Amino acid sequence: MNATLDARKAATAAWFASLRDRLVAALERLEDEAPPPPEAPDAEPGRFELAPWNRTGADGSPGGGGTMGLLRGRAFEKAGVHVSVVHGRFSEEFAKRMPGAEADPIFWAAGISVICHPWNPHAPTAHMNTRFVSTSKTWFGGGGDLTPLLTDRRRQDDPDARAFHAAYEACCARHPGVADHARFKAWCDEYFRLAHRDEPRGIGGIFYDELNSAGDPAMSGFDADFAFTRDVGQTFLDAYPAIMREHLAKPWGPAEREAQLVQRGRYVEFNLLYDRGTLFGLKTGGNVASILSSMPPTVRWP
Amino acid sequence: MNATLDARKAATAAWFASLRDRLVAALERLEDEAPPPPEAPDAEPGRFELAPWNRTGADGSPGGGGTMGLLRGRAFEKAGVHVSVVHGRFSEEFAKRMPGAEADPIFWAAGISVICHPWNPHAPTAHMNTRFVSTSKTWFGGGGDLTPLLTDRRRQDDPDARAFHAAYEACCARHPGVADHARFKAWCDEYFRLAHRDEPRGIGGIFYDELNSAGDPAMSGFDADFAFTRDVGQTFLDAYPAIMREHLAKPWGPAEREAQLVQRGRYVEFNLLYDRGTLFGLKTGGNVASILSSMPPTVRWP
Repeated sequence: MNATLDARKAATAAWFASLRDRLVAALERLEDEAPPPPEAPDAEPGRFELAPWNRTGADGSPGGGGTMGLLRGRAFEKAGVHVSVVHGRFSEEFAKRMPGAEADPIFWAAGISVICHPWNPHAPTAHMNTRFVSTSKTWFGGGGDLTPLLTDRRRQDDPDARAFHAAYEACCARHPGVADHARFKAWCDEYFRLAHRDEPRGIGGIFYDELNSAGDPAMSGFDADFAFTRDVGQTFLDAYPAIMREHLAKPWGPAEREAQLVQRGRYVEFNLLYDRGTLFGLKTGGNVASILSSMPPTVRWP
Repeated sequence: MNATLDARKAATAAWFASLRDRLVAALERLEDEAPPPPEAPDAEPGRFELAPWNRTGADGSPGGGGTMGLLRGRAFEKAGVHVSVVHGRFSEEFAKRMPGAEADPIFWAAGISVICHPWNPHAPTAHMNTRFVSTSKTWFGGGGDLTPLLTDRRRQDDPDARAFHAAYEACCARHPGVADHARFKAWCDEYFRLAHRDEPRGIGGIFYDELNSAGDPAMSGFDADFAFTRDVGQTFLDAYPAIMREHLAKPWGPAEREAQLVQRGRYVEFNLLYDRGTLFGLKTGGNVASILSSMPPTVRWP
């Protein structure tokens, strides 16, 4: 059993690392194709800078770490691709809320997160993250979602929204018994919501958590759940660059830039007021630079 | 007793309104004195736009309201001066945490808040707010604090910090038995702290709450507490424009602007992660535009 679990940890960590490499390559390809933005006419095609970091547990012991990857360039004002493999013990308070951690607070988790803030106001901001978590239980979680910034593109009938939803609907359909697109899409809408403004953050996507399609402790659903989780990443890798390419050559002016910067403020509000990962990370001594690298690069509250 | 309380409500509300008028005049005077910033060379001296709003209680009944005042100009990229007089019933959860509301959740509150975001990166951001709250008890609360944005000015031995602290030390000294500067200054440092970064928001000032120097239910300290609270406002009205005038003619370049915008990100992080007033307002259906008008106008997380 432990050999199986170790193999699963190794396989998921290796997948997240290989997906990171392919995301980096795909986003850098967009950098080579994009003209410099009017706000930064001298910008060169961006390249990811990778910065490793180590996690120290609350008791001072080593707790794994990760690699923060950040790019600033022509297509993206800022893009981050981060992987991490962390382990340790949940705090007493947190252990109560985590599946399988009630009796033993030990955990192991690996994951990847991507957040892209394009220069072009016509192009949507995008986010994807997936993770594999092991306590006395194991599960996958994650999702992908799209945030168009201009009002007339922040609609379900916009071509970007239709393409993104179609990609994740097809992805879920490839994993019957594991992924329920209608449920994961509704979960995404419920999660990415600014209650204080009674507004959605973007046009949605999918969101899932505590996925273990076979139920514990057998974990026999691992292969199927892992295949779906790989597909969530692969789907993003295919869908988002294609959406970006639709916009690369579109010109924009100060009015679109202003609208983009104001709408990005909503993104900040969501991340700091509601996002569980952000709040959990900040309040438990996570890597601040890495957690807040998801913040949009330039924002306005006029 | 009710006649006395009614008179106190009327007197405090009238004070906040008159202080607002004087703050508006003082800040507009700075607008007339400031050259246009390089980022907005065509900016005219700004004038406050006042927008009244009404509050509706959770049960749909009228709950008072306020006036949001916003200025965008030459000295200030954004400045807000807001007054409100609200009343109603605290939610059950909130009543438990509010003094004097355990048995009867009815409340009345009047207050003023000011937040100034200068264009000039050498000039500090400043905030002041005071309020009078009545449940079955009554009390005053508030304070003023300063946030220099450039690293080499965000120091206790900086002339701005010294002037601001000296002003509030003198203010507190004028109200012996009511105001304890050492305690109120320490309270401010404790409150305006970014725990996730282990950083203070600025250089501090004073903070006080639940001030009723005579203890309830006699309320005989009202006159003294009100005199101190008026002085907190008056002190800000004198001290901050004087600090601003030291900076109005100083030139700056893109490096100072960038440092200012990045440091403003910390202000956003504080307001959305920690500020009780902001979180309380947003989570209880407050006026979003008015609550978030404290957000800096332009911010960077590079």
